[in-house]
Amino acid sequence: MRERVERLASLVREHELDSLVVGDLVRPGDSGPADMVNLRWLSGFTGTSGAAVIRPSEAFFVTDFRYAERAAGGLDGFEIEIAERQLVPALAKLLEGRVGFDDAHTSVRVHGRLAELAGDTVELVPSAGLVEELRRRKDEDELERIRQAARVADEAYERAIAGGLAGRSEAEVAAASAAAMRELGAEPAFPAIVAAGPNGALPHADPSERPIGTGELVVFDIGAELDGYCSDCTRTFAAGEPEPKAREVYELVRAAQEAALAATAPGVDASRVDAAARDRIEEAGHGDEFGHGVGHGVGAEIHEAPRLGKTSEEVLIAGDVVTIEPGVYVKGRFGVRIEDLVAVTGDGYENLSGLPKELRVVD
Amino acid sequence: MRERVERLASLVREHELDSLVVGDLVRPGDSGPADMVNLRWLSGFTGTSGAAVIRPSEAFFVTDFRYAERAAGGLDGFEIEIAERQLVPALAKLLEGRVGFDDAHTSVRVHGRLAELAGDTVELVPSAGLVEELRRRKDEDELERIRQAARVADEAYERAIAGGLAGRSEAEVAAASAAAMRELGAEPAFPAIVAAGPNGALPHADPSERPIGTGELVVFDIGAELDGYCSDCTRTFAAGEPEPKAREVYELVRAAQEAALAATAPGVDASRVDAAARDRIEEAGHGDEFGHGVGHGVGAEIHEAPRLGKTSEEVLIAGDVVTIEPGVYVKGRFGVRIEDLVAVTGDGYENLSGLPKELRVVD
Repeated sequence: MRERVERLASLVREHELDSLVVGDLVRPGDSGPADMVNLRWLSGFTGTSGAAVIRPSEAFFVTDFRYAERAAGGLDGFEIEIAERQLVPALAKLLEGRVGFDDAHTSVRVHGRLAELAGDTVELVPSAGLVEELRRRKDEDELERIRQAARVADEAYERAIAGGLAGRSEAEVAAASAAAMRELGAEPAFPAIVAAGPNGALPHADPSERPIGTGELVVFDIGAELDGYCSDCTRTFAAGEPEPKAREVYELVRAAQEAALAATAPGVDASRVDAAARDRIEEAGHGDEFGHGVGHGVGAEIHEAPRLGKTSEEVLIAGDVVTIEPGVYVKGRFGVRIEDLVAVTGDGYENLSGLPKELRVVD
Repeated sequence: MRERVERLASLVREHELDSLVVGDLVRPGDSGPADMVNLRWLSGFTGTSGAAVIRPSEAFFVTDFRYAERAAGGLDGFEIEIAERQLVPALAKLLEGRVGFDDAHTSVRVHGRLAELAGDTVELVPSAGLVEELRRRKDEDELERIRQAARVADEAYERAIAGGLAGRSEAEVAAASAAAMRELGAEPAFPAIVAAGPNGALPHADPSERPIGTGELVVFDIGAELDGYCSDCTRTFAAGEPEPKAREVYELVRAAQEAALAATAPGVDASRVDAAARDRIEEAGHGDEFGHGVGHGVGAEIHEAPRLGKTSEEVLIAGDVVTIEPGVYVKGRFGVRIEDLVAVTGDGYENLSGLPKELRVVD
């Protein structure tokens, strides 16, 4: 962890801050895992109450009574402060000068309390995204966890469709994928999407009890979480031979997905990767039916930096792990989405999703 | 749902607001379930992108492209607006006059954007807690779901300890409780705490691989989530006959827990329920070893209003569902916590936790 603290301390110096606060300031003292991702990445701490204060050459960790013993045992490189009662007053005591805070993960209410408690000598400077920027560059250990999580998802597809698709309900197939991930020692990173026929045109439909019809396309989007890291993958299967129009749109999306993959490399604008897929889909007259960005970063969170969309301003770097997932949603009829998870390398990308992309017709 | 919207519209009038915004404004457009609880309670919507605007006699619901069809199908009583791209600009267009917003669930960043987009004629008024206040009064349908979730937890204890305690690892027992909840059609509401011997003195220790020793006390804290509602329960078991001191502290905590239960009724200050337990523990000389409040509300969230602690200002009402969970943590030796989940009724309480509280010695 110490190296990560060092990298962050460099950013603190670069931004001319006296301190940077890292940790959940929406539900301080009662944070969920989603709120604690930055702090966990920085320190390894997995509790529900904690914050770090990073100074140019010191690092503090504040937690409360409940985690006192755990903190004393396992936070190498931090000076530990135990809050007598609440986290925010204890945190306020550590602040001085120009203090960066995560304005994207600090509530208006907590910001007000912190400003009041810290007093006039403290200037709170909005500094969201610093840790997220560092988290983009995955190290080899993180990459290996994501690779494993992607393999779990690949295997979960196989187990979930082993019983066929037509006649089973979307919910049943979704549950089978979750059960498979658990058998493999992982957890679902998000609730599976299994959307057949017209439901496939709703990009985020909940799996229903409706039986999948013969010949319907089935958009199947799953991810695994393993050792704190996520994978994300979508395949569109056919539950028996589909109508010709569905096959045609499938091949369009597949070509668009390959075009976006081919554009993926370090130094490339994220918006250019989006455009590579979008141009194909627009040329084929389906532009209005592709209403989301082509991808997003994945790591400790299922959605993290960078975002790959029309208006993205990020540039891809080696170490980014991103999805490439164009889709076309034909209202009332069917949807197609094809999504790979890829790691940006020194000169291109490594595809972490192992499943083939020819349209698979499942009997 | 309409009745809930009506109750909230009354509060909007009472607070002299022109509108109230309900919905996650920390991660708008990409919210997790924990961020969407108020909106789900109000509207039934379960997606990751949405917000409601409640006016004195109208209700709007904003969501994006991805949920357009779902919203059109299932949001009775709301006028639907579909955001062309992002949620916040679409939301800003609906605002005028005095606009209440949830300052506890709105980030500093989103508040800034909203203020900028809404313009000078809009006054943003911090109004956190209005929906949470309504959510305290559970209706019969909600109570029944919580009862069922509590029954799942009761049964999960039995299945998890069926194989004995001494010699098994904390992690193994924790995993057995999670598996049992899933067999019963529920999910764990939070990661189980199984903390044996000295680990029991860490109120939020992660279950370890250490085998539970014969004669150790085992703090075992679990909850189930079923149909969107949670339960929460703690029992402290003995893995074989414990040392006399442990039994003595156990009986103290049990008496304190019964005293707090006896104090639980509508119209009673939450701080008085806390005091009922705390006084007993302090009189016995263990006051310093009880470092948390006596309880908290439970419902759609595992921690919700009201809070029952030394400094609470809430008064219990019929319909509150709260935990009563004093504990004593003897550093380096053992911990004891006993927790029931109770519903406050018209004249007292209904205990939803069915397991007995005599010290159970598991062979």
